[in-house]
Amino acid sequence: MIQKEKIKEKFQDLQDDICKTLEIVDGGSFHEDLWEREGGGGGRTRILQGNKIEKGGVNFSAVSGVLPDKILQALQIEKSNFFATGVSIVLHPKNPLVPIIHMNVRYFEMDNGTWWFGGGIDLTPHYINPTDAIFFHEMLKNTCDKHSAAYYPKFKKWADDYFYIKHRKETRGIGGIFFDRLSYNDNFTKDQRFDFVLDVGNTFCPIYLNLLHKNENRSFTEKQKEWQLVRRGRYVEFNLVWDKGTKFGLDTDGRTESILMSLPAQANWVYNHKVEDKSEEKFTQDHLIKGIDWINYTV
Amino acid sequence: MIQKEKIKEKFQDLQDDICKTLEIVDGGSFHEDLWEREGGGGGRTRILQGNKIEKGGVNFSAVSGVLPDKILQALQIEKSNFFATGVSIVLHPKNPLVPIIHMNVRYFEMDNGTWWFGGGIDLTPHYINPTDAIFFHEMLKNTCDKHSAAYYPKFKKWADDYFYIKHRKETRGIGGIFFDRLSYNDNFTKDQRFDFVLDVGNTFCPIYLNLLHKNENRSFTEKQKEWQLVRRGRYVEFNLVWDKGTKFGLDTDGRTESILMSLPAQANWVYNHKVEDKSEEKFTQDHLIKGIDWINYTV
Repeated sequence: MIQKEKIKEKFQDLQDDICKTLEIVDGGSFHEDLWEREGGGGGRTRILQGNKIEKGGVNFSAVSGVLPDKILQALQIEKSNFFATGVSIVLHPKNPLVPIIHMNVRYFEMDNGTWWFGGGIDLTPHYINPTDAIFFHEMLKNTCDKHSAAYYPKFKKWADDYFYIKHRKETRGIGGIFFDRLSYNDNFTKDQRFDFVLDVGNTFCPIYLNLLHKNENRSFTEKQKEWQLVRRGRYVEFNLVWDKGTKFGLDTDGRTESILMSLPAQANWVYNHKVEDKSEEKFTQDHLIKGIDWINYTV
Repeated sequence: MIQKEKIKEKFQDLQDDICKTLEIVDGGSFHEDLWEREGGGGGRTRILQGNKIEKGGVNFSAVSGVLPDKILQALQIEKSNFFATGVSIVLHPKNPLVPIIHMNVRYFEMDNGTWWFGGGIDLTPHYINPTDAIFFHEMLKNTCDKHSAAYYPKFKKWADDYFYIKHRKETRGIGGIFFDRLSYNDNFTKDQRFDFVLDVGNTFCPIYLNLLHKNENRSFTEKQKEWQLVRRGRYVEFNLVWDKGTKFGLDTDGRTESILMSLPAQANWVYNHKVEDKSEEKFTQDHLIKGIDWINYTV
């Protein structure tokens, strides 16, 4: 059965692989900050301010210690030592026709033997392109189906519910997959869960490289750039108001600059911004809803 | 004893007065949206995208109905009808040498006879200027002292504690005054509390006009503009992560566009932004701490 040290190592390798690939594709270089956590452990924060990626982070961390009371209460568990490791990615591209992407894989365990995996990938296109959306969801479904036919439908719905900006009554983007608290049961061993999680991590590059290559050279207008900045404002709203990972990080006195790497270089707010009828912005707005079956979407 | 209808009226007058004054000073015009709340009541949202004020809101609302369960629990009260009215202002100036200002006055009552006032004014200079900071706090102290010698020290500390960006370990700005749950007691009647609150409202224009006039024509550099955008990012972080008023509004299904008028037209995030030694940015950063006695600050 896989142990935490091995999981940590594999997550570090995943971070290395993804960073190398992104550097080749973007042409820019990651800036790395190594940090230590007072309570135990630390991380490697890597930030890319590149040619195609305006601002992106590919973070690894492995932290341990005693959980703060606030978290113990939220998780409804007794005082315990914990170990948590994971890789988190958010990329904000320059070109508004390239989507924002987020990926996370994580592992958590406690002294009492409890453990689980969590993670997911979700896409936030500034402009929703059905062909890209279908491709994105097909890639995720393929990865899921290799491990269980039950995964994609369940985790797709979970993503729809999780990446929801309640006060805007809109989804953050076109969803993807999200899962949490995956432990062992009658159907899955720990190694099987980990294989799935690593597979999700390894699906990141093929997905994003295709979406980047396909769209990076398309020309865009001032209006499209403005819309991108407004959509980024919504991304900021989700992350600061609703995202549990961000909240957990800020509550546990995590490294603020690593947690908030998810925020874009620039975001705009326009009072009561409205999209024009029959515009491509309207098309996107109309598709920021839960429950779209992208796999069977007819273009 | 003053009644809710009269308080509402006076708050509307306050909104009118402040908007008129700001229009004269700025040269621009407010855009007004009248809105109704499904559960009862409504508001007048007024937004200025002006010549000197890049984005600002001066909002009035008076809402009523049944409190949501979430709020009942937070306030630890039983099911009850409520009435709430208030004026909220946030102004984001174009010139980074002019500060951001926030003002709020509010009244809340329940069917069971419970009532209270809340509010405050706080200042967020992109560049802290001690002369301006002293003036600002002296104006607030004067207003407070007219009603009680105990007000300024208490409400100044309250503002320091409230306008604190915990995950940055810095204050939002140079504080000001903040107060909540001011009801009657042995020392104050309802009318006296209301007089104080109105006085706070009426202190807004003299304060901001002076700070605007004094600084609006000062020339600024690209670097100062960049710093303004980074400081605005912190303003966004405070409002979306920590501000109880914003949280209350979003939780009670308030009008999102009115609540989030507090967000700037543009905000930037620079990974691990550092100020230079001995720079004016460093001076500001070093003064974003609680407990500075601005009234007795020696320039």
